[in-house]
Amino acid sequence: MNYKMVLATTGKIILTEAGLLLLPVVVSLIYGEYNTLRALLLTIAIALAIGGLLQLFNRTKRKDIFASEGFVTVAFAWIALSLIGCLPFIISGEIPNFFDAFFETVSGFTTTGSSILRDVEAMSHGLLFWRSFTHWVGGMGVLVFVMAIVPSNNKGSMHIMRAEMPGPIIGKLVPRVKETAKILYLIYIAMTVLEIAFLFFGGMELFDSIVLSVGTAGTGGFAIKGDGLAGYTPYQQWVITIFMLLFGVNFNLYYLMLIRRFKSVIKSGELWFYIGVVLVSTTLITSNIYPLYQNISDSLRHSAFQVATIITTTGYSTADFNLWPGLSKGILFILMFIGGCAGSTAGGFKVSRVVLLFKTIGREIKHLLRPRSVSKIRFEGKTVEETTVVSVCIYLAVYIICFVGIFLLLSFESFSFETNVSATAACFNNIGPGFDSVGPMANFADYSPFSKVLLSFAMLLGRLEIFPLIIAFSPTTWMKRYR
Amino acid sequence: MNYKMVLATTGKIILTEAGLLLLPVVVSLIYGEYNTLRALLLTIAIALAIGGLLQLFNRTKRKDIFASEGFVTVAFAWIALSLIGCLPFIISGEIPNFFDAFFETVSGFTTTGSSILRDVEAMSHGLLFWRSFTHWVGGMGVLVFVMAIVPSNNKGSMHIMRAEMPGPIIGKLVPRVKETAKILYLIYIAMTVLEIAFLFFGGMELFDSIVLSVGTAGTGGFAIKGDGLAGYTPYQQWVITIFMLLFGVNFNLYYLMLIRRFKSVIKSGELWFYIGVVLVSTTLITSNIYPLYQNISDSLRHSAFQVATIITTTGYSTADFNLWPGLSKGILFILMFIGGCAGSTAGGFKVSRVVLLFKTIGREIKHLLRPRSVSKIRFEGKTVEETTVVSVCIYLAVYIICFVGIFLLLSFESFSFETNVSATAACFNNIGPGFDSVGPMANFADYSPFSKVLLSFAMLLGRLEIFPLIIAFSPTTWMKRYR
Repeated sequence: MNYKMVLATTGKIILTEAGLLLLPVVVSLIYGEYNTLRALLLTIAIALAIGGLLQLFNRTKRKDIFASEGFVTVAFAWIALSLIGCLPFIISGEIPNFFDAFFETVSGFTTTGSSILRDVEAMSHGLLFWRSFTHWVGGMGVLVFVMAIVPSNNKGSMHIMRAEMPGPIIGKLVPRVKETAKILYLIYIAMTVLEIAFLFFGGMELFDSIVLSVGTAGTGGFAIKGDGLAGYTPYQQWVITIFMLLFGVNFNLYYLMLIRRFKSVIKSGELWFYIGVVLVSTTLITSNIYPLYQNISDSLRHSAFQVATIITTTGYSTADFNLWPGLSKGILFILMFIGGCAGSTAGGFKVSRVVLLFKTIGREIKHLLRPRSVSKIRFEGKTVEETTVVSVCIYLAVYIICFVGIFLLLSFESFSFETNVSATAACFNNIGPGFDSVGPMANFADYSPFSKVLLSFAMLLGRLEIFPLIIAFSPTTWMKRYR
Repeated sequence: MNYKMVLATTGKIILTEAGLLLLPVVVSLIYGEYNTLRALLLTIAIALAIGGLLQLFNRTKRKDIFASEGFVTVAFAWIALSLIGCLPFIISGEIPNFFDAFFETVSGFTTTGSSILRDVEAMSHGLLFWRSFTHWVGGMGVLVFVMAIVPSNNKGSMHIMRAEMPGPIIGKLVPRVKETAKILYLIYIAMTVLEIAFLFFGGMELFDSIVLSVGTAGTGGFAIKGDGLAGYTPYQQWVITIFMLLFGVNFNLYYLMLIRRFKSVIKSGELWFYIGVVLVSTTLITSNIYPLYQNISDSLRHSAFQVATIITTTGYSTADFNLWPGLSKGILFILMFIGGCAGSTAGGFKVSRVVLLFKTIGREIKHLLRPRSVSKIRFEGKTVEETTVVSVCIYLAVYIICFVGIFLLLSFESFSFETNVSATAACFNNIGPGFDSVGPMANFADYSPFSKVLLSFAMLLGRLEIFPLIIAFSPTTWMKRYR
């Protein structure tokens, strides 16, 4: 294990975070929130000190890293990021309890959006911005961000990208990883700015436009009003619905559109499956909730918004879907697990994996009928390697075992079965709200500190797609130093 | 498709069922229940007619069958079995509604034990016996039974056995399939008789002893009292607990014990995992429910009974576990999916698959850490072929997709989320009771006819491990006749 390289990279991430904290500093200055300002500046100082020391004491000439070190780096970086990121909440006294602040920050960086805040409107503008901005930072991956801006020639950067980016197959858009990361971030920034413009010129306050847009871009979902997004105009809600869906699409497709390869975009099986699921779910839910709203445009708007928010694992809400009938809740529950497309900022199991699983099952049935037949699975115009097929299946197994484990540990809480199942699903899939006591109009405040740490861990597991954390915490990783 | 062979075998199964119906005839005679007797005799006449005609008009010289025909045969046989088996309930008027009677019969043959009866004690002895006896017939597989008793030299009988017997790997105990089937049935009969003896000499009425024993053997779980098994003595409950666990063990192990290969038994990874899960779950639930019973022996007895009944997918109950705290319900919910060992009469995903998945995940993690490492998975003293590993993973995917599909269709009912999720789990895993409105002290009577058919289909899917039914109902199976 190349400890020095892992720790130096973690240091680099913490220094980057210190830089990112300058944005909420500006917000606090604008609103004259000096208590928040003090907390932010103090955190920046701490981050600079820790990050600097980690960099200073871990100079190494061995710049290349192995796959295992990529996983460990990502795990360390995200935990460090969350530990530093929760300091402003604690220092300012706005979320005095460590477990609460840590939960909220992990929920931010992992783009979950589950909150422990009972009264979100009591928060300062500076910290509301920081809270939602963590979504934006975590959405595309902070290590990918560092790769994009920091000049380096690490041979192992592909390992880091693979460990941090969601989805079964990570393709480099262009030969150099650094350039790929830059292109992804440019698309990401452009789309965020576009959403801010649509909301701001649609009559939303600038602060709200920015905060909700960075939350949409990261598919995070922290709301800044007590009633979620119910108070905004239908136009604004539709804008957010559309952008949520756009941020749930594989970013590679946007790149393909930029270089005018429209044919490849049209042929994307993942995209069509995603669109199909959204359309079918929206139609079913619209007709199912029509009796509640007695109005087709309201039913459609609430249905489309909630479908978009859940499948992209964003977690905003315009209606208390916990009160919707069983069919609607059942569909939303299933969407919680499908998640967005690979290579997007969304969480969950990912559409591409679902599509690959269906194709694998189809082949298995064919094989059962004619045992001597041999066929390859094709996806997005390419033949899928057998190892990818197997690893998607294995990911499903690991995913389920993790889900079951988290749910079981959460069952020690005296909440209802529905609350605990949906809380696990909401955190593990980085969505935000669940059903019943953790529904869209409720929060996670009543869980014990143990469960808050557990759910924070679940969010990290979900965001990093499990393996980095398992490997970082597996004893064998650390015993191998002599090999 | 060798239609003639498929239909002739279905005919043979129906004729066998006519023979099996003689047992409840005897019971009805003993208790002087002439209405039931008439219904049973009429059903026998119908079965003889249909079975005879199917045999008569489908004579064929081509006796060998392909894998696909094995699957289709099994699917047809089980549906025919259930359609004929529900006639006595309808004709006698004891369950006048077709959908109810079909549900009850499928629930019987698939060893599920979910019931639509609001007042089970109002049933006649003859039909109570038939209802539980279907568990016994379905447990070990009726086609395996036919193979054991009917002289034939079908080259494809292994395909049928593979399609009907649960578990990822079907081993022949002895070179000939027929002999293997015979050995399995002899062990099955001997153990059933042993349980009857233990219960009868422990003070239970003979009728109850027999009916509950055949229900245990098939891991079915139809109760014959309104309060389930709560009214029996602790000794009787413990006997049933132990036999449920014994019938959840891979029958190959009993054969290995008979031929004195104790070492292979001791080394069975599946057995140890099964024992481990049972012990850990029982301990956790005992301590969790202690406050309810205030008594260690009651807590332990109820905990052990419920763990055994759920993991073996039997479905008897001695306590209303729906009222137990969240942790206990959470554990039971997970046990619902694990199920018993492969090669037993139990349903669910099967312990051996769970063990194989864990081993596969372990290897994947190893492989991620050292990408060049190559290792084989070993299970039960043998190297597992890669195709088996892949097909277990694929089975998991199919299993989940089916579960989700059934749950979604069931969500059209206005029951609670917990009711619908647990009803799906209970039927698909062939358990019996779920939680909330389908808890151990409730029943499935309030579901609509559509849902009853859906859940009947779910039970068949679960019992036959999905593929036979998918293949039988897949259009491509039927379009291939010209190839």
